[in-house]
Amino acid sequence: MSRVRVHNFAISLDGFGSGEPQSLEAPFGHAGERLHEWRFGTSSWKEGGSTGVDDLFERRHNDGFGAEIMGSNKFGPPGWQDDSDWKGWWGPNPPFHTPTYVLTHRPRSSIEMEGGTTFHFLDASPEEALAVAREAAGDLDVRIGGGATVVRDYLAAGLVDHAHFAVTPIVLGRGSRVWDGLEGLESSYDVEQVSAPSGVTHVTLTRKA
Amino acid sequence: MSRVRVHNFAISLDGFGSGEPQSLEAPFGHAGERLHEWRFGTSSWKEGGSTGVDDLFERRHNDGFGAEIMGSNKFGPPGWQDDSDWKGWWGPNPPFHTPTYVLTHRPRSSIEMEGGTTFHFLDASPEEALAVAREAAGDLDVRIGGGATVVRDYLAAGLVDHAHFAVTPIVLGRGSRVWDGLEGLESSYDVEQVSAPSGVTHVTLTRKA
Ligand SMILES: NC(=O)c1ccc[n+]([C@@H]2O[C@H](COP(=O)([O-])OP(=O)(O)OC[C@H]3O[C@@H](n4cnc5c(N)ncnc54)[C@H](OP(=O)(O)O)[C@@H]3O)[C@@H](O)[C@H]2O)c1
Ligand SMILES: NC(=O)c1ccc[n+]([C@@H]2O[C@H](COP(=O)([O-])OP(=O)(O)OC[C@H]3O[C@@H](n4cnc5c(N)ncnc54)[C@H](OP(=O)(O)O)[C@@H]3O)[C@@H](O)[C@H]2O)c1
Repeated sequence: MSRVRVHNFAISLDGFGSGEPQSLEAPFGHAGERLHEWRFGTSSWKEGGSTGVDDLFERRHNDGFGAEIMGSNKFGPPGWQDDSDWKGWWGPNPPFHTPTYVLTHRPRSSIEMEGGTTFHFLDASPEEALAVAREAAGDLDVRIGGGATVVRDYLAAGLVDHAHFAVTPIVLGRGSRVWDGLEGLESSYDVEQVSAPSGVTHVTLTRKA
Repeated sequence: MSRVRVHNFAISLDGFGSGEPQSLEAPFGHAGERLHEWRFGTSSWKEGGSTGVDDLFERRHNDGFGAEIMGSNKFGPPGWQDDSDWKGWWGPNPPFHTPTYVLTHRPRSSIEMEGGTTFHFLDASPEEALAVAREAAGDLDVRIGGGATVVRDYLAAGLVDHAHFAVTPIVLGRGSRVWDGLEGLESSYDVEQVSAPSGVTHVTLTRKA
């Protein structure tokens, strides 16, 4: 059976997956690129980059997925729904290469991109959206791609099999927080923590058997 | 010059230093003992315990302090101010062995205990309380002993030189949170993270030179 996985979801020490305000100029708000710097140092991103634990996690990001589900605020800046030309941040060939389901209360027609990515827009519960994505993914896994709201909603609904967070050594203070409403998560998941020399701690949740 | 240090302050993945509600029966609320289990496994606490990184941090807890400052909610359960016999949780010989300043809006007379601990009660700003504690500590350091509210207030006021948090792999969801209002803390501190086999990640903040 295909699994539901979260990978490389970067959060601050205080649990924020993005800063604020989100905008076209600053997709992560006042967080800037700081949540993601550790990724850019790995050999997955640049020649001669690191090949240790950061890179191992980074490599899993695109490994074995047949579909992605993301939130409306990951797909575009506030108000993208009013721009009929908006096709995401990622240019003509987005890095998903699978059917990609965007949860939004204002769905539009699907958009086929280059490289195998098709954006579909769903106004649906986490469970309903997952059923659609699973169907599309076949034997492959479904990635919950973020932001924090969507990751949190899928964790709260008990729909995630494996989750990986990269805790970066900054305190954002405000933004979109992943942990809210998840009291007692450790009773359903084995939790592992491993720090990397980059300064990040990788936290993995594996659903208990 | 003596330094101001926080040691072995245990928090959940979501940043809570205690659960709720705090009471005589459950000083840490629904967190129980789970934030502190890693400490009990070290050789500082029991014969044959671990001697690795957890123990190294644990041993620093009582190393070089001439005074402690703590919050009212660490000193006693809600309402302790109405019990004139309350002398803290720790029995006749508390583990502080120094002057210990309890911040409270309802101060009372000092209480001299065995073993060098004297409890003093102060209704004062963080700065004012620190000046008093520094005076008492002489060349030794001042420990900010918690709870989260007091640690947070001292960090926010820029009065902490070194802080150590032990991030335990549980999600508490509610209680007293240490990170609130500390946006940008990383600009004043070098932050290091190291995970231990016990499942805890030790986060240290060292004030930048
Ligand atoms: N840290 C990381 O690794 C990482 C990864 C990915 C993204 N991000 C960042 O995270 C931020 C976005 O996170 P976020 O928490 O603000 O938002 P988000 O999770 O991307 O999206 C939340 C929004 O999606 C829509 N939505 C969610 N569930 C829905 C449902 N069941 N039905 C219909 N619509 C639904 C709603 O928008 P509407 O009501 O507007 O439709 C909701 O406000 C962005 O800055 C992004 O760049 C960070
Ligand atoms: N995780 C750990 O390692 C750790 C360590 C220590 C304690 N704890 C736990 O943390 C919990 C307590 O934390 P907390 O955040 O609830 O409270 P706290 O920090 O212990 O105490 C906060 C209270 O202290 C008083 N106070 C603080 N600053 C003051 C000031 N400048 N002037 C006058 N009074 C002041 C106020 O109480 P009043 O208005 O009532 O006077 C305030 O509500 C307890 O459960 C304790 O066992 C955990």
